Amino acid sequence: MTGGRDEGGADLAPPPGESPIIVLVRPQLGENIGTAARAMANGGLFHMRIVAPRDGWPQPYAWRAASGADKILDHATIHPTVADAVADCHRVFATCPRPRHIVIPVRTARAAAEDLREINGRGLRTAVLFGPERAGLENDDMARADTLVRYPLNPAHMSLNLAQAVMILAYEWWTAVETTPPRYLMTNETAVATKGEIDGLMGRLISELDASGFLDNTAKRPGMVRNLSHWFQRGEVTVQEVRTLHGVVSELSKGRMRRGRIPDDAS
Amino acid sequence: MTGGRDEGGADLAPPPGESPIIVLVRPQLGENIGTAARAMANGGLFHMRIVAPRDGWPQPYAWRAASGADKILDHATIHPTVADAVADCHRVFATCPRPRHIVIPVRTARAAAEDLREINGRGLRTAVLFGPERAGLENDDMARADTLVRYPLNPAHMSLNLAQAVMILAYEWWTAVETTPPRYLMTNETAVATKGEIDGLMGRLISELDASGFLDNTAKRPGMVRNLSHWFQRGEVTVQEVRTLHGVVSELSKGRMRRGRIPDDAS
Repeated sequence: MTGGRDEGGADLAPPPGESPIIVLVRPQLGENIGTAARAMANGGLFHMRIVAPRDGWPQPYAWRAASGADKILDHATIHPTVADAVADCHRVFATCPRPRHIVIPVRTARAAAEDLREINGRGLRTAVLFGPERAGLENDDMARADTLVRYPLNPAHMSLNLAQAVMILAYEWWTAVETTPPRYLMTNETAVATKGEIDGLMGRLISELDASGFLDNTAKRPGMVRNLSHWFQRGEVTVQEVRTLHGVVSELSKGRMRRGRIPDDAS
Repeated sequence: MTGGRDEGGADLAPPPGESPIIVLVRPQLGENIGTAARAMANGGLFHMRIVAPRDGWPQPYAWRAASGADKILDHATIHPTVADAVADCHRVFATCPRPRHIVIPVRTARAAAEDLREINGRGLRTAVLFGPERAGLENDDMARADTLVRYPLNPAHMSLNLAQAVMILAYEWWTAVETTPPRYLMTNETAVATKGEIDGLMGRLISELDASGFLDNTAKRPGMVRNLSHWFQRGEVTVQEVRTLHGVVSELSKGRMRRGRIPDDAS
């Protein structure tokens, strides 16, 4: 993570539970980054992260288009990948109008905003991904998200400007001050794992599966890895569960090895 | 009233009751007119009227920014005054963030959209006024309106781009009848697994873990099994994922066994 213009702040991560971080993924035009910041300010969102901006950073056009929302740009951080941008987040929503062959819970913008209020209200750190202007998010970006946000809009004209997409979410965030939690996870003495912790577990699992030959089909490998990732993203895995699952992966691998050595023990 | 590019249509007034007419009052930048048209298309609004555009009409910048919403611009009509633009309308709403010393009913964007749906549903012709980029509507413009629309937004940063203002109204117009369930799981060609299918997977996993010795601590065993079960219950596991996870359990166990037999293969 590298800081934006404000080089002073060492760690610019917002305190958990404050408000969602808006993550612009590979945005193309500086002007759109600026108008997105303006829209964020309109809706009371203040934390921006930018993944691999096409034209580098900082870009003067962004500040010119921000109409007073300069502070958001001043504190924006730049990240090489989506994984890096969301590593310290507990929940990641992705906005995407296109149908995908993935299994992921889908929310309208309004329901997503209510969810985000509720999740932030539990003291978790959340992020919302917005794809580049034309192309939208890639499948590998989506595999970092646990929830898909789909705006209800005219199906004959879905193409939404980046800043407009941010505007709608920011507007719904602002209006969703309703506080009755529609859903919450009882975590008891443990906590919800961050995306970085899930990545760590996924990395372990993938390397074990690579070693076992399960992922030898190179054509199918990326899709299989994404499928596993999507499953891990759902349902707010807890820190305790991540720990247990690390143990499960280790033991499944080692246990059979022991049995391989002492075949009589196997059945 | 003078026609836009489509000079053929004598009277381009939409049939009463169809959808609100968006009236841009003295807009300054052609680009903003274009992005406003795009936002209208996103939300299913198709009738645009423009009062005294600063730079004349038509403006190529508008079409360039419309991203496929050309038809709206093609059919937009130009009017010298607000009074002329709304002369054939039954109800006129005005969007304006500034407090005014006037007595007028005020609606949020959402309530306004619901009102408009209801009013249009009664076969009346409606219009919504949007002021110029910086100045906003003048008092004389407001005097043509019967209802004020005020967006609930961050009071510390109310300044809204023209297209953003149109976007929010268009979005609320569309969602006022929208029937997308607020949350659903996109399962593609697969289906959500039954609890029995999850039990089957859990049974496999537990017996592998028993074999490996992972669950040897009899005091902790029931709690650990329950924890795993709780995690599997969350997030609507699909049939396809259950199948993949069966494969994962098998392969993790077998792969290491193979490596156990041929140690040189291991690293």
